[in-house]
Amino acid sequence: MKNVSRFVLGLDFGTESVRALIASSSSGEVASAAAAYPNGQILHQLPDSPVKLPSLFALQEPRDWLSSAAKATKAALKKAGLQGSDVVGLGVDFTSCTMLPTLADGTPLCWLDRFRENPYAWPKLWKHHGAQSQTDRINKVATARKETLLLRYGGIIGLEWFFPKILETLENAPGVYDAAEVWLEAGDWFVWQLVGGTGERIPRSSCQAGYKGMWNAQDGYPSESFLRAVHPALRSVVREKMPGRLIAPGQSAGELTLSMAKQLGLQAGIPVSAAIIDAHAGVPGAGAAQPGTMVMVMGTSSCHMLNSEKEVLVPGIAGVVKDGILPGFYGYETGQAAVGDSFEWVRRISGQKDFTEIGKQAESIPAGADGLLCLDWFHGCRTPLMDGSLRGAFTGIALHHEPAHLYRAVLEGSAMGVRWIVELLKDGGVDVKRFVATGGLPHHNPLVVQVYADVLQQPITVHPSSNGPALGAAILGALAAGLFSSSEAAIRNMSLPKKGEARIFKPTKANRKEYDRLYDRYRTLGKHIQSTNPHRS
Amino acid sequence: MKNVSRFVLGLDFGTESVRALIASSSSGEVASAAAAYPNGQILHQLPDSPVKLPSLFALQEPRDWLSSAAKATKAALKKAGLQGSDVVGLGVDFTSCTMLPTLADGTPLCWLDRFRENPYAWPKLWKHHGAQSQTDRINKVATARKETLLLRYGGIIGLEWFFPKILETLENAPGVYDAAEVWLEAGDWFVWQLVGGTGERIPRSSCQAGYKGMWNAQDGYPSESFLRAVHPALRSVVREKMPGRLIAPGQSAGELTLSMAKQLGLQAGIPVSAAIIDAHAGVPGAGAAQPGTMVMVMGTSSCHMLNSEKEVLVPGIAGVVKDGILPGFYGYETGQAAVGDSFEWVRRISGQKDFTEIGKQAESIPAGADGLLCLDWFHGCRTPLMDGSLRGAFTGIALHHEPAHLYRAVLEGSAMGVRWIVELLKDGGVDVKRFVATGGLPHHNPLVVQVYADVLQQPITVHPSSNGPALGAAILGALAAGLFSSSEAAIRNMSLPKKGEARIFKPTKANRKEYDRLYDRYRTLGKHIQSTNPHRS
Repeated sequence: MKNVSRFVLGLDFGTESVRALIASSSSGEVASAAAAYPNGQILHQLPDSPVKLPSLFALQEPRDWLSSAAKATKAALKKAGLQGSDVVGLGVDFTSCTMLPTLADGTPLCWLDRFRENPYAWPKLWKHHGAQSQTDRINKVATARKETLLLRYGGIIGLEWFFPKILETLENAPGVYDAAEVWLEAGDWFVWQLVGGTGERIPRSSCQAGYKGMWNAQDGYPSESFLRAVHPALRSVVREKMPGRLIAPGQSAGELTLSMAKQLGLQAGIPVSAAIIDAHAGVPGAGAAQPGTMVMVMGTSSCHMLNSEKEVLVPGIAGVVKDGILPGFYGYETGQAAVGDSFEWVRRISGQKDFTEIGKQAESIPAGADGLLCLDWFHGCRTPLMDGSLRGAFTGIALHHEPAHLYRAVLEGSAMGVRWIVELLKDGGVDVKRFVATGGLPHHNPLVVQVYADVLQQPITVHPSSNGPALGAAILGALAAGLFSSSEAAIRNMSLPKKGEARIFKPTKANRKEYDRLYDRYRTLGKHIQSTNPHRS
Repeated sequence: MKNVSRFVLGLDFGTESVRALIASSSSGEVASAAAAYPNGQILHQLPDSPVKLPSLFALQEPRDWLSSAAKATKAALKKAGLQGSDVVGLGVDFTSCTMLPTLADGTPLCWLDRFRENPYAWPKLWKHHGAQSQTDRINKVATARKETLLLRYGGIIGLEWFFPKILETLENAPGVYDAAEVWLEAGDWFVWQLVGGTGERIPRSSCQAGYKGMWNAQDGYPSESFLRAVHPALRSVVREKMPGRLIAPGQSAGELTLSMAKQLGLQAGIPVSAAIIDAHAGVPGAGAAQPGTMVMVMGTSSCHMLNSEKEVLVPGIAGVVKDGILPGFYGYETGQAAVGDSFEWVRRISGQKDFTEIGKQAESIPAGADGLLCLDWFHGCRTPLMDGSLRGAFTGIALHHEPAHLYRAVLEGSAMGVRWIVELLKDGGVDVKRFVATGGLPHHNPLVVQVYADVLQQPITVHPSSNGPALGAAILGALAAGLFSSSEAAIRNMSLPKKGEARIFKPTKANRKEYDRLYDRYRTLGKHIQSTNPHRS
């Protein structure tokens, strides 16, 4: 029989929930189901505990990942009308840098009674911003030492990354640091649970390590002398507390254990791909096999990813990793720290039940939101300033403005942030030819895509799947299972939209001038806010 | 019999309602009652008409002033247990510059069928901001001609003043301008209705004329050559369309006519004081007979008034008028265009029913609102920039901020605005020794007074009457009726708080440093917003 369809599973771990997606090797997405984490984001108080968290904290509970993944997988199989035994491969994408300390056997420290009420023993979610002073120090030392690794990250190490988060715990909770036998990304932890093993068998994704862990294939992790200069006790952290082997997404990290197969309702022994960052999974998931296509994975935050044949070290671009997204290309990662989150802030602050009312009104407000301008740094500026201590702003407020004006302005501010990133890449010599939007947001919210198209003055294709990253994870599962000889072949069969399937948002020419002016104002305001930032630690 | 109490009436015309206050000549306030204007502020659409208004328009209906004044007066008399015949004098304060065009007999043009649907025939409320380009032109011409009148107004003519509002109508609705036989302040119009007369008998308040009409006792109104340079047709406006005689507040403008006495339920023939601006009435109303006391009349907007023995022309101070507030002193007027209005904006934008919840929460947020900074220019900046085209801002926004943070920040931003004004006066050599808060706001909202005290690092006395301006108007009624030989004597008897009656807010020393820093940030942000203002016409 020709073209036998085989089925694979993608698990997409987001900020609030996990999505399980079943895909066919011949036609892509078949069915999917999401399950919310029982504890969601842990922002204010530890579960079942009186312990309150500082305002910059954002934690998660690993039990949620396990239980929600099982629930979602079973629901997806049911929807697809398939048995667990039909699934022949499995891929995992995860938010990043979400990371945690564990014992040598993988037990998260927060599961131990003695650490249950210590916030530092819990997984830090990507958006956890407690490590500002540590990030500043790492940057200061790296700059002083002229560390070449800085060049790969636009000259600056991010507040949300792996080593700042470790150092924060080392300094604020040395007992937790001492007890940690393994520090790792949550995505790697989950794959580790799936495939078992210890010590050097622990799978670590080269994607997460490359973008968030200052690792690259040539030089490895940061040197001991650099780490010692940052903090004496940090010197040996890689050697002593980061065991494992680096594996590229799409390569097999091992085979599904019996116990995890039971929990998920799958068959033991199927290959599991190394993890990938959720946003990066959106690139194969959005059918973007070619260089020059910017894939905007839009959700709570946004990652804008691009493959290029050229390696250009552009100041302000968060990361350039060879084979970081797809084999054979330099993967550029850029991003905005609060996208859906900042829209959600406006919804919440304006006492709206949902976006229906303000969305409808915002649509009929002309470009420029009647003079209201928003700087979208509600959770810091990721690209290009890489400064989590920056904050958002509204200017141009008049008494007659309504919540819908704030909402229109925050959509436009977010679009201005993308425009800045695109200009930066182009000015640096990296071609940006096409735009594909994926993630949950573009499907729920066509207005934001239209505003982006107008501000960029470029057409934007919305990939028909609402589940780009989950589909990307499934594609990686198919690659790990050896169903395709190349990623291009996998993408062509599994995620390239068929003619007429994708919605294309064309730029409104009439808005061009207004948005050119607004972009100038956005940059001027950004410069002012940056130069007067009082929040920098 | 010694110390016979006589009763007087003060009518205080605000933005939304009029308050009638009965006062005794020996002990001050007896009773008061307010009545809302049936049409309130006319902001979006003319009453009973499909005509929509531009967003900067703010109009009123003169019938509302008459009917609400009658209603409030009768209710106040009833509360006081008095007869209309007990009232021996009457004073009127009014928002300013609220102004209108009428026929020679006082009929407002908006009452004529042919003008009923023309917005320019209606009274423009003080906050009407339709005359931006006209204001700019008047300032340009005045500056080019080095008009000395500019010196009295801090170098700049305000968007909300009398001549810009006339010129706006001349240019945009020449038919209305041609039909107007009298242009005058609403307060003067109301007093005119009370006392009758035509032509040169029309009473005009030297307070309104001095602060809003570019008039002073020495030079009169602006010269014909200046007005002609602004617009040829404006040349003769004073001579042809502004008949009347200038009368100081506290002097009698005439006696109550029989027909108005009937409408109000009073006795005909009692003396009526010339009108005063509502905020300025707050100075005698707050018991401030001495120089160096800043009376902050806080409401929808705020006026901060001060009497001084010195005439200093301070750049940025809206007006310095000899005998403008109390005889014998130079009256300094400064102000903020949106105070209660900006708090109300935050309440409305955040979907709060009232201020209870956010007020309580804002109280427990530390000084500095967790990094959130507000520029309070939601309706332009009155003092010191006199620029109605400026707009407000919030900076320092983070995802965890709640409506209560916005609310705390807007209170602090408003306080920073006062601090700037006080610094300006002191730097100019005008002594500011004491602070008295009056108007409705300080009584409803103790938190704003505490924040003001903390930001100024000065104690603030809240005058026990919620009705400072109305009491001040009653005092002027008593003066017009000849009940006292001096304004000091009237104030001592009628509005000086007795020991223990006034609430005093002491500054929280611990907040001093934070507010010093915040004030620097406020000024820096203000400078940026001013220098990048895209709304200037």
